[in-house]
Amino acid sequence: MNAGMLEELTAQVISILESNDHPKLGTYTNSMRPYDRGMVFEELSDLKQKRAFVESLEISSLAELLRYLSPEEQAIAISFIDQAILGKVLDEMPNDDLAEMLDVLQQDQAAALVNVMSKEEAQIVQDIMTYPAESAGRLMTNRHVWIYPDMTVHESIEKLREYAKVFDTIHYLYVVNEEHKILGAASFRDLLLADAADSIEKIMSKNPITVQSFVDQEEVARLIEQYDLIAMPVVNEANKLLGIITVDDVIDVLIQEATEDIERLSGSGKEITFKTKPVVAFAKRLPWLVLLLLIGLVSGTIISRFEETLATVVALAFFMPMIAGMTGNTGTQSLAVVVRGLTTNRIDKKTVSKLIIRESLVGVMIGVSCGILIAFIAFFWQGSITLGFIVGLSLLITLVFGTLAGTIIPLILHKFNVDPAIASGPLITTLNDILSLLIYFGIATSLIARFPL
Amino acid sequence: MNAGMLEELTAQVISILESNDHPKLGTYTNSMRPYDRGMVFEELSDLKQKRAFVESLEISSLAELLRYLSPEEQAIAISFIDQAILGKVLDEMPNDDLAEMLDVLQQDQAAALVNVMSKEEAQIVQDIMTYPAESAGRLMTNRHVWIYPDMTVHESIEKLREYAKVFDTIHYLYVVNEEHKILGAASFRDLLLADAADSIEKIMSKNPITVQSFVDQEEVARLIEQYDLIAMPVVNEANKLLGIITVDDVIDVLIQEATEDIERLSGSGKEITFKTKPVVAFAKRLPWLVLLLLIGLVSGTIISRFEETLATVVALAFFMPMIAGMTGNTGTQSLAVVVRGLTTNRIDKKTVSKLIIRESLVGVMIGVSCGILIAFIAFFWQGSITLGFIVGLSLLITLVFGTLAGTIIPLILHKFNVDPAIASGPLITTLNDILSLLIYFGIATSLIARFPL
Repeated sequence: MNAGMLEELTAQVISILESNDHPKLGTYTNSMRPYDRGMVFEELSDLKQKRAFVESLEISSLAELLRYLSPEEQAIAISFIDQAILGKVLDEMPNDDLAEMLDVLQQDQAAALVNVMSKEEAQIVQDIMTYPAESAGRLMTNRHVWIYPDMTVHESIEKLREYAKVFDTIHYLYVVNEEHKILGAASFRDLLLADAADSIEKIMSKNPITVQSFVDQEEVARLIEQYDLIAMPVVNEANKLLGIITVDDVIDVLIQEATEDIERLSGSGKEITFKTKPVVAFAKRLPWLVLLLLIGLVSGTIISRFEETLATVVALAFFMPMIAGMTGNTGTQSLAVVVRGLTTNRIDKKTVSKLIIRESLVGVMIGVSCGILIAFIAFFWQGSITLGFIVGLSLLITLVFGTLAGTIIPLILHKFNVDPAIASGPLITTLNDILSLLIYFGIATSLIARFPL
Repeated sequence: MNAGMLEELTAQVISILESNDHPKLGTYTNSMRPYDRGMVFEELSDLKQKRAFVESLEISSLAELLRYLSPEEQAIAISFIDQAILGKVLDEMPNDDLAEMLDVLQQDQAAALVNVMSKEEAQIVQDIMTYPAESAGRLMTNRHVWIYPDMTVHESIEKLREYAKVFDTIHYLYVVNEEHKILGAASFRDLLLADAADSIEKIMSKNPITVQSFVDQEEVARLIEQYDLIAMPVVNEANKLLGIITVDDVIDVLIQEATEDIERLSGSGKEITFKTKPVVAFAKRLPWLVLLLLIGLVSGTIISRFEETLATVVALAFFMPMIAGMTGNTGTQSLAVVVRGLTTNRIDKKTVSKLIIRESLVGVMIGVSCGILIAFIAFFWQGSITLGFIVGLSLLITLVFGTLAGTIIPLILHKFNVDPAIASGPLITTLNDILSLLIYFGIATSLIARFPL
């Protein structure tokens, strides 16, 4: 849905709201697509209209509505839901979405909601919330159908039919033993192709791909992507089936992880979207910039140490921004390759050493090419062989180091499980600035002393 | 699957290959998971082993194998497939994967493959290849089941059962009229909950979300994500059903688009992964770096114009890298927000003007904060009010311009459909370098003339 369609849809809802035709409103709002319903609710600017919109919705529509709202809008919608039905609405929400919602609410608000829920659902949600953030356990829902291997295809379809009334989406049937350990899975296709009297044991696929509850969500996304799955069972250490993760959650994970990678590379604040308010965006971006400013001053002190060299050959300053910039550029390139690689590859020693060797070679090749190029340019521009040599040699060395810094720093942070947001592009660029100035002025000072320009 | 598991699996296959036990080999390789089979094939280093591996596979396993291989490995595998069955293998591949494969092969190779295929399949694949790159038409497969609205649920299930024998995955049934225009869709859940004698017209959902064949793949991914779909019908202008796009293709699109965004931001060459060879990575990265080097020289000529100012106050050089760096940093932050926003938002005038106003405000707030901070630092460090003022004012102005450049440049490129890869982070950084030096030395020269240090 694009902005134009949303405006149109919202206008239509507003006109029905203003007509005060309650039956018409209910028919309309309850038959909307869940995503559209959420977007229109967020778009309504008048709180009275939001209230009337919420009051027109049935329990199942309300449960869907909450899934598609941002945390702030969820709080508004909840405040308009009749207390008498709130518990039922929450019980009907998929428990992964519910856990996500409770997670961002303030503790007392979350507790109040848990209180109105059925005890069983409340327990399930609280269990989910004990799993670490961004783990498979957090993404899973208990809305899956399990069967036993000695059931027939006909019996399984009957069970499925029962559950279909309650669950929106059912992708696979999971086969478990009496201890609820997972034995296999059967798809609709398997059921369709089998005879009604066949036993499940005969038609199920054995050894389904499973994931343990504590595994990182990126690993889950990788498995679903690699094996083209629509849902994936989550198990505990004893292989007991705990729940399933569906592909729509994985899509959200992929988008979230890509956004995180980009925030990391750019040093932009977390979660700045087109909708973020100026002051919030400012507050999120400033800390990084102040840190980079202070680190950037280090380059100033380095230059001040070489003040004498610089005063002797002012032309050295001409090449300063280019050398610093190029070192940052090659570092950023390497960083991007590593950051992206970390999300799509499992990292082991072999991979890491191959990567470092590769990037060293690339760094040397880039350094030699660019170094020779700039040496000639500097010589023809300033007419000094010494200056050409200083600039070329400096660029060669800084490009090799810059490339390696962009490769090794994120790998080290990854190894020590440090939040890789620290290895942002701007930080690498700023560190490479400092490194390149040290190398440049170091080489210049020692060479000028011996071969004056 | 991680590197360790892959090594283990490959070792197992090699030991069976070496045992020369053909029946055992066939049983093992044909029952592997498709993704695992592809990875193991790529891992085998001996061409004789690759040949034996391919020869052990049945037609359907071969069709799956090709889907999971890189272009180079596909060419190797195809060369080992018996010419007598090659046509059947290709006919059995989903036609979107087949089109992708043919697309990267050399023309004569692709033509040779098309020749051995059945005429019908060849026509379908050639049709798909006429759609523009990265469009919905390219992603779609014709492996979907359509039914008519006057069919009963029982008849539909019978039709589905027939198709399930041929198709791996069946998610929805699409309801069409005699002209093959799409009328609705029915899920398995709808079929399960209905009576066998119900007509499809009664149970289908009307107005399913569809996408036109020429629409960009990012838009397809957005719709599947927003509406939590597993498959989506592709139609032509007359609403005639052409094929479907499945969620696994959308996952690949999301990964590809995120990678492109990151390549864009970092100015790293296209498609450099952990496996890319050093010379290839070098060749992909160098053009950008040489371009940036040449642009970077502009900053050198700017400084050379202000040589006199710099010779008078060498301390100006101390703050040069910091000011240039900070301008680049804020520009990169804005760029990241815009690039990411472009993939998740539809862009209209309202959105753009709101965004530019927001970023202007953020730029001013950042500029004022950092400008005041650095003015004090410069004053206390160098003991000159004039220098503090010059540095503070320059940083304020360059940060405002830098923020706006990082916002507006990618938006303009997007507007004119220029490949946004041009608006890379390093380019914005390099342009901001030049801008910031002009502003810094401009302010310094005019102020120092009036208020000597």
